[in-house]
Amino acid sequence: MQFYVDGFRGGNPDIKNAAPTNRREYSTNAPLPEKVDVLIAGTGPAGLCLAAQLAKFPEISTMIVEASPENIERGKADGINTRTMEMFEAFGFADKVKREGYWVNQTNFWMPDPQDRTRIKRLGRVQDVADDSSEMPHAIINQARIHEFFLEVMRNAPTRMQPDYNWSVQSLTVDNSTEDHPVTVVLVNTGVNAGQTKTVRANYVVGCDGARSNVRKAIGGELHGDAAHQAWGVMDILANTDFPDIRQKCLITSATEGNVLIIPREGGYLFRMYVELDKLKDDERVANRNFTAQDTIAAANRIMAPYSIDVKEVVWWSVYEIGHRMTDRFDDVPDSERANRNPRVFTAGDACHTHSPKAGQGMNVSMQDTFNLGWKLAHVLRGQADASLLHTYSQERWLEAKRLVETDHEWARIMSAPPGESELDGGDEPRFVRQFKLNLEFTGGLAVKYDQSRLTGSNQYQALATGEEVGRRFHSAPVVRLSDAKQLQLGHVAEADGRWRIYAFAGENDGSTDSAIHRLADWLEQDANSPVVKYTREGDDIDSVIDFRGVFQQTFDELEYDKMPSLLRPTKGKLGLQDHEKVFCVDHKGLGDIFTMRGINREQGCMIVVRPDQYIAQVLPLKATDELAAFFDGILVQPE
Amino acid sequence: MQFYVDGFRGGNPDIKNAAPTNRREYSTNAPLPEKVDVLIAGTGPAGLCLAAQLAKFPEISTMIVEASPENIERGKADGINTRTMEMFEAFGFADKVKREGYWVNQTNFWMPDPQDRTRIKRLGRVQDVADDSSEMPHAIINQARIHEFFLEVMRNAPTRMQPDYNWSVQSLTVDNSTEDHPVTVVLVNTGVNAGQTKTVRANYVVGCDGARSNVRKAIGGELHGDAAHQAWGVMDILANTDFPDIRQKCLITSATEGNVLIIPREGGYLFRMYVELDKLKDDERVANRNFTAQDTIAAANRIMAPYSIDVKEVVWWSVYEIGHRMTDRFDDVPDSERANRNPRVFTAGDACHTHSPKAGQGMNVSMQDTFNLGWKLAHVLRGQADASLLHTYSQERWLEAKRLVETDHEWARIMSAPPGESELDGGDEPRFVRQFKLNLEFTGGLAVKYDQSRLTGSNQYQALATGEEVGRRFHSAPVVRLSDAKQLQLGHVAEADGRWRIYAFAGENDGSTDSAIHRLADWLEQDANSPVVKYTREGDDIDSVIDFRGVFQQTFDELEYDKMPSLLRPTKGKLGLQDHEKVFCVDHKGLGDIFTMRGINREQGCMIVVRPDQYIAQVLPLKATDELAAFFDGILVQPE
Ligand SMILES: Cc1cc2nc3c(=O)[nH]c(=O)nc-3n(C[C@H](O)[C@H](O)[C@H](O)COP(=O)(O)OP(=O)(O)OC[C@H]3O[C@@H](n4cnc5c(N)ncnc54)[C@H](O)[C@@H]3O)c2cc1C
Ligand SMILES: Cc1cc2nc3c(=O)[nH]c(=O)nc-3n(C[C@H](O)[C@H](O)[C@H](O)COP(=O)(O)OP(=O)(O)OC[C@H]3O[C@@H](n4cnc5c(N)ncnc54)[C@H](O)[C@@H]3O)c2cc1C
Repeated sequence: MQFYVDGFRGGNPDIKNAAPTNRREYSTNAPLPEKVDVLIAGTGPAGLCLAAQLAKFPEISTMIVEASPENIERGKADGINTRTMEMFEAFGFADKVKREGYWVNQTNFWMPDPQDRTRIKRLGRVQDVADDSSEMPHAIINQARIHEFFLEVMRNAPTRMQPDYNWSVQSLTVDNSTEDHPVTVVLVNTGVNAGQTKTVRANYVVGCDGARSNVRKAIGGELHGDAAHQAWGVMDILANTDFPDIRQKCLITSATEGNVLIIPREGGYLFRMYVELDKLKDDERVANRNFTAQDTIAAANRIMAPYSIDVKEVVWWSVYEIGHRMTDRFDDVPDSERANRNPRVFTAGDACHTHSPKAGQGMNVSMQDTFNLGWKLAHVLRGQADASLLHTYSQERWLEAKRLVETDHEWARIMSAPPGESELDGGDEPRFVRQFKLNLEFTGGLAVKYDQSRLTGSNQYQALATGEEVGRRFHSAPVVRLSDAKQLQLGHVAEADGRWRIYAFAGENDGSTDSAIHRLADWLEQDANSPVVKYTREGDDIDSVIDFRGVFQQTFDELEYDKMPSLLRPTKGKLGLQDHEKVFCVDHKGLGDIFTMRGINREQGCMIVVRPDQYIAQVLPLKATDELAAFFDGILVQPE
Repeated sequence: MQFYVDGFRGGNPDIKNAAPTNRREYSTNAPLPEKVDVLIAGTGPAGLCLAAQLAKFPEISTMIVEASPENIERGKADGINTRTMEMFEAFGFADKVKREGYWVNQTNFWMPDPQDRTRIKRLGRVQDVADDSSEMPHAIINQARIHEFFLEVMRNAPTRMQPDYNWSVQSLTVDNSTEDHPVTVVLVNTGVNAGQTKTVRANYVVGCDGARSNVRKAIGGELHGDAAHQAWGVMDILANTDFPDIRQKCLITSATEGNVLIIPREGGYLFRMYVELDKLKDDERVANRNFTAQDTIAAANRIMAPYSIDVKEVVWWSVYEIGHRMTDRFDDVPDSERANRNPRVFTAGDACHTHSPKAGQGMNVSMQDTFNLGWKLAHVLRGQADASLLHTYSQERWLEAKRLVETDHEWARIMSAPPGESELDGGDEPRFVRQFKLNLEFTGGLAVKYDQSRLTGSNQYQALATGEEVGRRFHSAPVVRLSDAKQLQLGHVAEADGRWRIYAFAGENDGSTDSAIHRLADWLEQDANSPVVKYTREGDDIDSVIDFRGVFQQTFDELEYDKMPSLLRPTKGKLGLQDHEKVFCVDHKGLGDIFTMRGINREQGCMIVVRPDQYIAQVLPLKATDELAAFFDGILVQPE
């Protein structure tokens, strides 16, 4: 992490200098603003992930309202997949989740013992995160803590952003005839002044207001989908048991009593159980059945026989029915009008797609939604891109949500089906295990791949980097920084700061002053057609829009730092200090060679253009300056 | 990290439940107490490390006073050696230092270019932390931040401890005729009520009040030592340079202009330089020479020619002269009286030994002093040990300080000596480099070895664990936890909580229910002579005094958890919840086999008894229950 570029300041470097414009400077209870750039509804994972990203830009006024009086304390989701952990790294709190959370290392499959079907037996075990699928663990932690980490990022950001609790979005209208804060939002107080309303005008509104979203309703969205008419209980408990795998993720299928999913939790004692309860009748809702926590505990004990659970404290519990539902689009522009106008209102997370909790996707996908939207809003509001960019949010995320609902659906079907004979005799690999393995990349959040578009290039040059697929997330790998010989993950240079990144991988023997990387760097720094030259605002740091990094095939002791192109050693900030963290070498301490690990063409090298949300936009030859210029010309606009 | 053993509680798990007795519960400005168990003078690294440790024990009343009005903001020490990082792990903030600090990976040696002695040239490079010497990096970070991390541990502890700023220890007297708070301390206010005095009575006083310690003076201590009559300048600067190794630690020797030491700092831009200034006359003090920051910058530029430094901001600077001084003992008991009375007053850190800053030892040794003292004070004050234990503090730490002063002295001599011809022709390895390599273990803080005593066993069974030497710190290695297959460092199970640890390494094929580890565990749990049985207070957790852990030679999938002895699966806390984190296996993912790495006898296994400050007290065969009982009988006393 970098700091002090504008001069030394004591204390916690995560606390950024406050921008003079921040509303909270006067008082935490400063009155609501009349107008904002962005109004976010809801402080769930989707809303907070967006707010944390926008909080870094003092030139954008953002407000986030929440109907509840405060953050939640327990319950709801708890699974953080590896992809989300990679994103947390960019927000600066992955280390905290790693330290505090439970790590899912193994998933165990328990099924009726073929010798005695009244007893369950462990029949399989799978490593939960495949080697080198991500540098991050699959972590489990209370959703409330994730909220707190985002809230801390917001509080520490220049805007000192905080939610306005006790305000609910009641309704909104869009006036498509103006560009000046066209969305009028009616907020209603849910606190001490309950019922009091207040009108705020916004340039953009993002509904992160959960499954019953008022924002969705206001733009005419409807959740479609199906329900499996199956009740499940979920509980977070402190309990003792003679079940030996209680600190590992377990999928348990009994012969006649149904299924249980065990998810160990943070702190070493707590764990979660998803327990299959009764089938529901076609017209029956789970709420009408009056299930109790005791029903869930009793069912769990039946399913897990001969083992038993002795519950000491029920921390949280709930019952739900399996269902998957989503809306037709994630913004306010019907397909028929896409060519004519740009979106003003968006929905994200549960507001536009809901999932079966057991697959552990809801919270992850919700955050990935707004991580996709955040930089696009920032680009438009900071004058870096045309507002038509905002169409790509619904396009990209709707397709992903659809894929997720389909996979999720398949998984739930398999989980709820009675085990077939073939999987009990130990002959076949059980269907469970097979499907689970197939799904690992998917449940890790790593299978997301955006289709070719103005944001995502073709696979024309994919052969130059076979392990870094265009449209998928940039897959980190170990490197060593040239200036200080530090081992680190290349992907960790990406912060959630709305910047683009170009990783230039040097060809063989590159490192001299006359090489493809040098020529690319010099072109980027000086040529009139270079996106760095064209799109960087005068007076801003040269890497403020596009952050250029070099990766060499040599080890750190084989390269000369003073021979590096000047774009890889730029001066920055108020004091004009030199940045020494742009050049990387291969790891020399046994963690692996990034060129081999990611299939980078050693002879030619290549450049990989990565979006602010960590997805790969382009893989190009080092000399493809025309393609590079054309790509950015299709997205960015010149500063005024 | 473990939490929720007494039931769920939302929010940050590092914030412990407040004890009802804590003074700050009423108000941050609660009046000073009349009597305390421990009064600590000074909030430098030594004082804060002690306070952070005692803060965890609500039954001990501790106060820490500081003459200054608040924490420092910049300057002073910045090097955290690997041993100190290991200790920070036990306090829970090593991750923060790792994330925020600079890592010293390589040290470079620059000397006059043999071809042209007016220019410096890089003549050597050494990996700064030898492979597997510690799992921790050598980190560099502002001393003020270390203070803040300790202050946070204190604030979050049950006692909610905070320093009483603006109170200086003026004098103290010890009444050896009473056991009831025999030390009377006169505090004088240095804030708004400047000059006001206040008397506090304490059972123990620890002078962590720096080189001019009043506490030391009060117990008749005097610093003896020598000075090299050589002035050095030190500055923390934001600067640009064409010197290519500016982000690596560098020792630079010029032909005629003297030496410079470069220490890169946190944040990517800041760095520190130690710059050799003039020789002082015999009776001259550095303060009388009126050196300026500009003098130091100018000298640095002369030494580093042909490279130059363009300083943009001087964050902090100082001049000093090299010197090494220490007192004859670190407590108030002269040798002649050791047999008759126990110490009541201690000194730690700079109060009893000062060093040349460049070796980067002062801050580290100061904290190691009080980490040694902290658990001993806690043992005595909580009735776990007899007060004679407190003699061992001065015994152990005085010898270490002496060794440090000697090494430090040698190093300073070499650093200040003009380079001999033999090291300039590139033939020999320069003296610098040779000595630096020899010193690495020492400067890492890893060479500390306490002599045989009631706390430190003999080397009789050392062959059972050749890589875990009795008297030295327990050297961590990778393991996998059986219950959840998590990879971790065995040493990281040790928290700064005043508990002893026994790591039982299983012999070959151990893992069945009839094995040496099982017999040891059962003896520990049940036998009347077992230290666990004898010294654990009724109603306390069975691991509250001695934390027993098992390490097996199998991988996690080869062992059955339900076959483990019950002491390795104890129930704990208010709810009687089972602890699943006591059993470890060898790493199966390529990080190495702990038995091989630490030379553990595979056939017999062994047990390693580790003190609360992470030093190895005993290496014993698994069946040596008599020796184990005798060892603890020599230290612990039975609870009343
Ligand atoms: C009871 C429950 C149990 C769950 N259990 C699991 C589980 O076991 N596993 C799992 O993976 N997922 C679970 N989920 C789903 C998971 O929590 C969601 O997928 C995730 O929280 C979605 O994030 P979000 O930000 O889109 O919406 P939410 O987290 O639902 O956040 C929406 C926020 O908007 C607020 N809000 C609503 N309406 C308004 C309004 N009009 N104005 C202002 N604010 C408003 C709400 O108070 C809420 O804070 C559960 C959800 C619920 C509700
Ligand atoms: C100006 C300066 C520069 C240094 N530079 C370096 C360096 O470059 N590199 C390096 O490794 N080390 C350096 N050191 C040394 C390093 O900081 C010390 O070794 C380390 O801080 C020792 O820790 P300590 O807790 O023993 O004492 P200190 O950190 O000195 O803390 C003593 C504390 O006690 C307080 N105090 C003093 N008297 C009283 C009293 N009577 N009552 C109450 N409180 C009192 C002081 O205000 C101070 O806060 C420097 C020290 C100083 C003073």
